[in-house]
Amino acid sequence: MSETKRFKSIGKNAIREDAFDKLTGKAVFGADVKVANTIHGVMLRSPHAHAKILSIDTAEAEALDGVYAVVTAEDFPELGYDLPGHISRDNIARRKVLYHGHGVVGIVARTEDIALRARELIKVEYEKLPHALTLDDAIAEDAPIIHDHLKHEGDSEGRPSNVYEKIERTYGDPEKGFAEADVVRERTYFTPFIHQAYIEPVVCTASYSANSQSTIWTTTQGHFQIREFVAKMTGMTERDINVVPTEIGGGFGGKTMPYLEAIALMLSKKAGRPVKMRMTREEVLRCAGPVCSAKVRVKIGIKRDGTITALSGHMLYDSGALPGVPASSGVRNIFTAYDVKNAYIEAYSVVTNKTRSRAYRAPGGPQACFAMESLLNEVADEIGMDPIEVRLKNAIRDNGENISKMPFKEAGLVKCLEAARDSDHYQSELKPGCGRAVSAAYWFNAGGISAATVTLHKNGYVSVTTGSADLSGTRTTLAQIAAEAFEVPVEQIHAEVADTNHVGFTGVSGGSRTVNATGQAVNFAAIEVIEQMKQRAASGWNVTPDDVQWKEGVAINSKNPDETLTIGQIGDSAAATGGPISSSSSVNIPGGIGPCFAVHICDVEVDKETGKTKLLRYTAIQDAGLAVHPQMVEGQMQGGAVQGIGWALNEECIYNADGVLQNPGFLDYRIPLASDLPMIETIIVEVPNSMHPFGVRGVGEAPIIPPLAAVGSAISNAIGAPVTELPASPPRVLSLTLSAEAGQQQEKVA
Amino acid sequence: MSETKRFKSIGKNAIREDAFDKLTGKAVFGADVKVANTIHGVMLRSPHAHAKILSIDTAEAEALDGVYAVVTAEDFPELGYDLPGHISRDNIARRKVLYHGHGVVGIVARTEDIALRARELIKVEYEKLPHALTLDDAIAEDAPIIHDHLKHEGDSEGRPSNVYEKIERTYGDPEKGFAEADVVRERTYFTPFIHQAYIEPVVCTASYSANSQSTIWTTTQGHFQIREFVAKMTGMTERDINVVPTEIGGGFGGKTMPYLEAIALMLSKKAGRPVKMRMTREEVLRCAGPVCSAKVRVKIGIKRDGTITALSGHMLYDSGALPGVPASSGVRNIFTAYDVKNAYIEAYSVVTNKTRSRAYRAPGGPQACFAMESLLNEVADEIGMDPIEVRLKNAIRDNGENISKMPFKEAGLVKCLEAARDSDHYQSELKPGCGRAVSAAYWFNAGGISAATVTLHKNGYVSVTTGSADLSGTRTTLAQIAAEAFEVPVEQIHAEVADTNHVGFTGVSGGSRTVNATGQAVNFAAIEVIEQMKQRAASGWNVTPDDVQWKEGVAINSKNPDETLTIGQIGDSAAATGGPISSSSSVNIPGGIGPCFAVHICDVEVDKETGKTKLLRYTAIQDAGLAVHPQMVEGQMQGGAVQGIGWALNEECIYNADGVLQNPGFLDYRIPLASDLPMIETIIVEVPNSMHPFGVRGVGEAPIIPPLAAVGSAISNAIGAPVTELPASPPRVLSLTLSAEAGQQQEKVA
Repeated sequence: MSETKRFKSIGKNAIREDAFDKLTGKAVFGADVKVANTIHGVMLRSPHAHAKILSIDTAEAEALDGVYAVVTAEDFPELGYDLPGHISRDNIARRKVLYHGHGVVGIVARTEDIALRARELIKVEYEKLPHALTLDDAIAEDAPIIHDHLKHEGDSEGRPSNVYEKIERTYGDPEKGFAEADVVRERTYFTPFIHQAYIEPVVCTASYSANSQSTIWTTTQGHFQIREFVAKMTGMTERDINVVPTEIGGGFGGKTMPYLEAIALMLSKKAGRPVKMRMTREEVLRCAGPVCSAKVRVKIGIKRDGTITALSGHMLYDSGALPGVPASSGVRNIFTAYDVKNAYIEAYSVVTNKTRSRAYRAPGGPQACFAMESLLNEVADEIGMDPIEVRLKNAIRDNGENISKMPFKEAGLVKCLEAARDSDHYQSELKPGCGRAVSAAYWFNAGGISAATVTLHKNGYVSVTTGSADLSGTRTTLAQIAAEAFEVPVEQIHAEVADTNHVGFTGVSGGSRTVNATGQAVNFAAIEVIEQMKQRAASGWNVTPDDVQWKEGVAINSKNPDETLTIGQIGDSAAATGGPISSSSSVNIPGGIGPCFAVHICDVEVDKETGKTKLLRYTAIQDAGLAVHPQMVEGQMQGGAVQGIGWALNEECIYNADGVLQNPGFLDYRIPLASDLPMIETIIVEVPNSMHPFGVRGVGEAPIIPPLAAVGSAISNAIGAPVTELPASPPRVLSLTLSAEAGQQQEKVA
Repeated sequence: MSETKRFKSIGKNAIREDAFDKLTGKAVFGADVKVANTIHGVMLRSPHAHAKILSIDTAEAEALDGVYAVVTAEDFPELGYDLPGHISRDNIARRKVLYHGHGVVGIVARTEDIALRARELIKVEYEKLPHALTLDDAIAEDAPIIHDHLKHEGDSEGRPSNVYEKIERTYGDPEKGFAEADVVRERTYFTPFIHQAYIEPVVCTASYSANSQSTIWTTTQGHFQIREFVAKMTGMTERDINVVPTEIGGGFGGKTMPYLEAIALMLSKKAGRPVKMRMTREEVLRCAGPVCSAKVRVKIGIKRDGTITALSGHMLYDSGALPGVPASSGVRNIFTAYDVKNAYIEAYSVVTNKTRSRAYRAPGGPQACFAMESLLNEVADEIGMDPIEVRLKNAIRDNGENISKMPFKEAGLVKCLEAARDSDHYQSELKPGCGRAVSAAYWFNAGGISAATVTLHKNGYVSVTTGSADLSGTRTTLAQIAAEAFEVPVEQIHAEVADTNHVGFTGVSGGSRTVNATGQAVNFAAIEVIEQMKQRAASGWNVTPDDVQWKEGVAINSKNPDETLTIGQIGDSAAATGGPISSSSSVNIPGGIGPCFAVHICDVEVDKETGKTKLLRYTAIQDAGLAVHPQMVEGQMQGGAVQGIGWALNEECIYNADGVLQNPGFLDYRIPLASDLPMIETIIVEVPNSMHPFGVRGVGEAPIIPPLAAVGSAISNAIGAPVTELPASPPRVLSLTLSAEAGQQQEKVA
């Protein structure tokens, strides 16, 4: 844990604003929203992975006592093929169902039970179509085409295709680079569809109002985006809708866009009552968030001295039924940690008949880095070099440039690698027969638009109002930033997340951007409030605001230092001295100006009889730039690492040949439990970010990237066979172990 | 209905922002608030009108399964003898119960049923004390003293007294004035305890939080005052509490201060759960708001030509168990409509063993004016002068002065009287045997502190956020004021009532102050937003903001009129051009700068066999200064008139000798129904208020003042006997009729 010295509030572990209410069960999550006269909606979902909808007959369902209304895609405007259009088509099927579990009809009734009974009375006639479930299925020559309007960019004839995006990048002379290498290795890696496995299911309540505003209460990472999308999806304007965010029980990228909100609002409009809709855990796993699968082929050329001479990557990302953002972040990420002068990337985004994938912490990054870092570990081993040394040899440094063209002023990778090398963990002896590996990661961290309103109240109490959903305790970090500006104790600040009516437009909480971008908006607004306080003090003292100093929450007349006014006194008299003191500010920060790096070290023991992997020790090292609240930074590093470990070891959406998810519950979709894990050790490195006023970089996403290769390579190290497919579940590891042993036998025989 | 021409939005009947949700049952009133895991509280109330509390034993109640917590006065800090202290003592009895129904113990349990069963298990030992129920009881020489700390100001020895306030005023030379009169008449008038009879009972939900903020949802006219009082009553600070106002189903002055809020919050603190408490109708009528009773003796000296030479008033106001504001408004009001140069007022406020009275539209005014206007009608009759002419003869005029010392620039009374005189109603023939009377009234109208935040959103949609509870449609009038400033259609404005966290401090919605004071704050904030929009436009055009004109929602470059930016364009680009565009403003307006007058005309027919009075026709005339929304002004005039008619004819809290309210329900406490009434005709007079930027005066309170005398004198006129005691209910009118007939018989005999 690191405590930064030059700040007073920043760098301290302030008590979390949300702690008490969450611990005592008072915090209002999505399902806790209660609106008088609410009725309850459910979705009828597709039984097929791909089919035409021939007809929908809801007459019998609507006749059931207690049923209020039904909606189908016909009740919504048909949008274009942009992001809101994709989300609309994902939320409710139009003419075709695109995956098993795809929403077809929304039904609302007095109780959920009645709605479920009514659902059984709806008759939908389908014409089944052949489906493409996997990347291989979807790119096959004779693949069934999922969308007629999607064209393959690489196809000169412009024929419809399941490949909707191609990205190609060349940097330096890859061919020459590979020719200069002493060793060239190439291998393909696969990661399956997984799920963010947020604990709180999708749930929302919508209340339509004809001449005032409709209200949507929902558990989301971005209520402004919900407002924007729902307005488009329902044909309303943003003025018509207020979105009230609830506490959120996990999002991780999976809760940035609507699932049920537009449907609930339209049902409310038809029914004339507030409508609540919630997904079961099964629905959540089937159709609310899965994370894209990827097949990544990496080629590394390396000299015996450890210099990487060339890199090449071929990536296929499976977006699910509708276009998302799969390949682009992988491209931005895969080779970015290294100062390699020759590189080539070719990446494709593909649709398949599975639910549309959503973001998941550092979206696209882990899949790409699993390949790069695993193969780098393999070639380091081959040239007999320590895996940290080979990374130090090639690490991107301050003001470095590579194929990513991402901005680096200070690149903290070297410091992270040195901290890893010097750590107690890396210096410790490994138990014989066990495996150890390291993995590094880069993440760009987003910027974007954030607003904040800072208001002075009586008693000098300050409220900080932002539009950033608080996923991880950011109310408290934002309060710390305001406390720092005002030079008052953080307890004097109350930070809260406002609905879309009560604060300026703010982008989603994601991309590790909240403390960075929203924190800057808070800081600017606080500075402006201090200016206003100086003006009030100055006018009382008949001096100019420039004559007023602000120190430790007190305005001081520099012409007569005996004259002082505390923030409390200024707050108490504000109504009489010129009205409320408040300021609203916003920032629009380009992405990538919070670059950060992480290095993880993993020790495993593999039970050779069952293939079960036990994590012995795990250390996460990360450059936070500045840790505003070190305990929460550690929490992010630990949480990200654990989710990455789950991805590496256990997690997987298992579909049968008909595209039906076989493990739609937490008994079969297994996330790591506390009992599966050692304490995740953390080392916070702080290389201040010169592109941010306090040096903040953003921390939430980077820690999910390294574990896939760290765990995979540690297993490889233990069993003597490369792990190229995740999850490294017991049957898969057992089979690798047996093959490796067979190989060794053969070698011995030979 | 009047439509003001010089404005675009102001003066139009805009569609009410709250209409749809209220009509369709979606509006969230106090009881509609649902908070997850809420438990339910009730109050144990005193069975005695006056008693010492010897002991409270809650052990058995607390042991009942499902009971979470109990509170007594001992759980709250003991406050001083100021307003919050009075309210605290009224909400929960400390050491003594002061009236039947006085709260003693709060109990909270899983359900209200359990709490009610637990209530029966609480044992309270009382020592009964003699009680003083009426004004006469309370001021008697040997009256039981209700509070040891209250001293009679007029008592030189400073002995404890039930008389806690004396106000005395002399203007000119009353003795000389009466000597100059041709006719001097004096009479005493009595009005009983009544109730505001708001339809929505008192209800609140409180959720305590230890390290964040506690939240209180409540139906109130002033959530900032609730926050202030509850903080004091619970020993918390205002920073610790956010008060969220719900829609309010009637307040009329009765919902400005806490009843259950502090108790629910303390129960929530003890129980660790949100607590909802609601009053039954019976509790509401027993202990949540009754309106003070008054005994007013008036003396008028008048010349044969109609000139009033002197006035004298002696007033006794019954505050109920704890001090309130009874006599002061009566003093401010009783003689203020008339330009009389000699006057004397002596007024006393008295405590009795009834629940503490609260405000009721123009608090104190109707009781005083009932006396003045009734007697004025009587002397006008005696000197044979038309009652409107006598009022015109004495009416206060522009810049006039009288005993009230209230400011008048333009006094609209003459215009109101002329409108009354010229009205179809007054010109119409009265059915033989029926009665007609007029009554006039002055009301000062409050100012006070109001804040507003005006924010520009995308699409040029503007939100107007205020802290003024919307009792009567003020969201819409405030939106009209903003629309006027921006020169955009009112539909582009969304006005809302924010909780205490989201807008600057704002006083209660009362005193007819909302459109006047909050309207000014909205106007100032809107003007500031226009300035900011001009700056944004100017910076894009490289001109100065002074070069930018604002016209009909569009910024125009006066240096190049082809360059324009609509409010929508400026809103869309705000995040990129410098952040959100928003401004907060507040005003602090002295009271009495919105003086207004009303004149009512009433025709009645009295059934001489039953004493039942039928209203034949009723017209309300009022100077609104400027009617921002004429339909709502009419609604206020009609609503006020009807409540005054109820006061005159039917309403009365009937206590038995033990101080127990005998009619605690709407069957026995009879308010006027639509079927009891003719359509109330209205004439809006508009004499612009030069002390307000648009000319607004405030309209909500004045119309309740004239009906008491208008109805009473019309009955007097019909039956030939003065009505001096209200309500003029059938038995009372019958008895007056019989006495009058007996008198006439006697006269005939004589």
